[in-house]
Amino acid sequence: MSGSGAGSRPSGASGGGSDLHLDLVLTGAGGVRASLVRALREAVRGGRLAPGTRLPSSRGLAADLGLARNTVADAYGELIAEGWLTARQGSGTRVAQRPAPGRASAHRPSVQRPSGGHSLYPGSPDVSAFPRAAWLAAARRAVTAAPNDAFGYGDPLGRPELRRALADYLARARGVRADPDQIMVCAGFSQGLAVLSRVLRNDGVRGLAVESYGLAPHRSLATAAGLRTHPLTVDQHGVDPAELRRRQDLGAVLLTPAHQFPLGVPLHPDRRAAVVDWARERGTVVLEDDYDGEFRYDRQPVGALQGLDPEHVVYLGTASKSLAPGLRLGWMVLPGRLVDRVLAAKTAAERHPDSLSQLTLAEFVTSGAYDRQIRAMRLRYRRRRDRLVRALAERAPQVRVSGIAAGLHAVLRLPPGTEARALHGASWLGLAVQGLDGFRHPDQPAEPGADALVVGYGTPAEHAFPAALEALCRTIEAL
Amino acid sequence: MSGSGAGSRPSGASGGGSDLHLDLVLTGAGGVRASLVRALREAVRGGRLAPGTRLPSSRGLAADLGLARNTVADAYGELIAEGWLTARQGSGTRVAQRPAPGRASAHRPSVQRPSGGHSLYPGSPDVSAFPRAAWLAAARRAVTAAPNDAFGYGDPLGRPELRRALADYLARARGVRADPDQIMVCAGFSQGLAVLSRVLRNDGVRGLAVESYGLAPHRSLATAAGLRTHPLTVDQHGVDPAELRRRQDLGAVLLTPAHQFPLGVPLHPDRRAAVVDWARERGTVVLEDDYDGEFRYDRQPVGALQGLDPEHVVYLGTASKSLAPGLRLGWMVLPGRLVDRVLAAKTAAERHPDSLSQLTLAEFVTSGAYDRQIRAMRLRYRRRRDRLVRALAERAPQVRVSGIAAGLHAVLRLPPGTEARALHGASWLGLAVQGLDGFRHPDQPAEPGADALVVGYGTPAEHAFPAALEALCRTIEAL
Repeated sequence: MSGSGAGSRPSGASGGGSDLHLDLVLTGAGGVRASLVRALREAVRGGRLAPGTRLPSSRGLAADLGLARNTVADAYGELIAEGWLTARQGSGTRVAQRPAPGRASAHRPSVQRPSGGHSLYPGSPDVSAFPRAAWLAAARRAVTAAPNDAFGYGDPLGRPELRRALADYLARARGVRADPDQIMVCAGFSQGLAVLSRVLRNDGVRGLAVESYGLAPHRSLATAAGLRTHPLTVDQHGVDPAELRRRQDLGAVLLTPAHQFPLGVPLHPDRRAAVVDWARERGTVVLEDDYDGEFRYDRQPVGALQGLDPEHVVYLGTASKSLAPGLRLGWMVLPGRLVDRVLAAKTAAERHPDSLSQLTLAEFVTSGAYDRQIRAMRLRYRRRRDRLVRALAERAPQVRVSGIAAGLHAVLRLPPGTEARALHGASWLGLAVQGLDGFRHPDQPAEPGADALVVGYGTPAEHAFPAALEALCRTIEAL
Repeated sequence: MSGSGAGSRPSGASGGGSDLHLDLVLTGAGGVRASLVRALREAVRGGRLAPGTRLPSSRGLAADLGLARNTVADAYGELIAEGWLTARQGSGTRVAQRPAPGRASAHRPSVQRPSGGHSLYPGSPDVSAFPRAAWLAAARRAVTAAPNDAFGYGDPLGRPELRRALADYLARARGVRADPDQIMVCAGFSQGLAVLSRVLRNDGVRGLAVESYGLAPHRSLATAAGLRTHPLTVDQHGVDPAELRRRQDLGAVLLTPAHQFPLGVPLHPDRRAAVVDWARERGTVVLEDDYDGEFRYDRQPVGALQGLDPEHVVYLGTASKSLAPGLRLGWMVLPGRLVDRVLAAKTAAERHPDSLSQLTLAEFVTSGAYDRQIRAMRLRYRRRRDRLVRALAERAPQVRVSGIAAGLHAVLRLPPGTEARALHGASWLGLAVQGLDGFRHPDQPAEPGADALVVGYGTPAEHAFPAALEALCRTIEAL
């Protein structure tokens, strides 16, 4: 498939594009956008697209490939965030100048950005605030005191020290009813969801209900285990349990009850009860993704759904938002009847999370350092949120900001039909941000006028936040 | 399925057994022995078998269940090593007295043993020798100096710092030709093999050749990816590549060339070349499992096979033997053409190894601490090996010890027909050890007279080694 990129360009750019041959295989995970990202990345990595090469405009490439312009703009935005491409007013989207050519920097992490770029990509905390000294102190205490068996092949549920620490913490901070022996430590939320999906599939579940907006990689994990995902419409009170009852083919449901991702609404109390009732009647489970439950700003945190019925809710938590994704530490609180089935569904390759990190986190939680870190970050994120809301009220009063009572991201409702333009505009300013449509379940019809940006205000380092916010405001002002 | 365990008992035991109902589901992973282990463990964990309960003799239970006595003795041995059961002369095999009843200690790691028990189970280093202080010092330097992106979602190949450190180390110490961009860090050998198996299967490979003796969990990983494993007979020079050539249905091969596991022979130089030639002609790869290549005692280490042809060998290494299994750190060196395919075959749940452990290992290797630890352990293991050989020469001269030029384990050839008796005898002395037959590929015919014990002399803590050796000698003397 090849695209001629001589299409027209948005304001301020000089010159057109270049012919672009892409090996676009649409069978991979993550849909069209992910395929396009992969194809472009390969072309850059393999050297076919040399540093400095001008790419076609997103409009031109979209026309050539028969894709939505939104898709191409999103793909460009992602590659800009990863550092493969750069976009500057006046010079279009280009292949980045890379210090070390060849493979050496080929697989750089997606949070690394070309200098001068900004990221408001949702889904990451401010990793520059990782409490290095406190973590090292906890590591020193934990590794020094560790029993010898901590260095051996581990307990497949995870270290007992960490499971005890989490049971106490989750009960206190999130209202989770947890027995340490029903907690399983996993390598982040993803591993937990992958294993649970296999357990559900083994139990005969075929259809998994999910929220109509959410993370495609999560849906892919369920799909890889042989489940079909079905979207439940999210309104201002979250998903409607009546939709669950109408569908006989849905055997379980995955929800973000405390703070819907990405829309930001909490699940209404009546609906929380109704969802749990449904699971109890069906003899199944709700998978509760509590990814940022600790970060709530304007009132008491919404407790975990799991507290309503621990035998019909699997609680999934993670250190990826509260500390750092790089730790790869998450946890599940399982109904008692599922513990052995989940253990059996873990493959040999998944059996043993790294013991020393687990012991370090146990010490970090037990010593109170985890609470301190969360309080400090809650303050920081809250200030950023307030600043974001204030800046938009001043400079873009037509934009409605929602989902801001909690979490590390906000949804900015844009004038109808402007989402793709906003994303492209952002990429011109070197700003990585995501459009709401990128989170829509493929079976969920697009809502006309639902244009929005999903802004991860928690992502940048503290010193980089003002410039990222400025780029965001300029993006919206230019719409 | 239920078994009445009133069968006869071996010498020295007082009294018979007890009726035993087991839910023996033979469909799980790991075959009959693993199923039996699971069923017994569940019965103890669930409280159906109370502490102190006398179990049927292995002969009696085997007869009742229609299993080989070897299988039952092995299962008992494993559960003794895990602390579920105890065996003492004069009182038979009993359910262990457990300090904390219920689930709390249910999933205890398999290296934990009841006090007074000995383990010479192969496959683990002496974890009591983990270099805690040096590791913490490396962690402090690494975490303090880490760039912020180390705390974010990671590079799916692994941290560049670690890949560079491994490229240098593996070239120097193991003769591996490694470009850091062709190294992938993985969560131990198992994850690497799981991903590679999927890549091979995606490439159309159906049959994977393996050694006739090896680890069943490794074979299971390949099977889970849709490959069939076919045993190649291991003789005193390793596997015979002519067998590979005769079989058109074998699309790749998994080997332990430096020190065959468990038999301990190195692959003969002529055969090394022939295996690589085969892979080159077939356009496929050899998977080289270099699990303990650093530990060779009597001459220079055998270099990695990978050095012969980096485009047709995937090198797999691990920190599980050189440092500790609890770290869950392994690495693959991939042919260039496989890098993107392996990346694509990793699921979202597998994408991100823990960054801080990776950075710590990078610093540990770069600072020279890794070499120091290996030298110190080589000395320790060599002394244990010499002591083992000396003790057996004195007390059991009929036993031939082989596979001792390298590694952390030895093979003790027993008088024909005595392997099962030896395992049972060992369990009576509270000694966990494995029989050679437990490593045999199910399609490989049993060799009459191939009775042997696989003795992991590296496993115990230094202070516990003499008692374990004594129990081993007494086991063999009693045959």
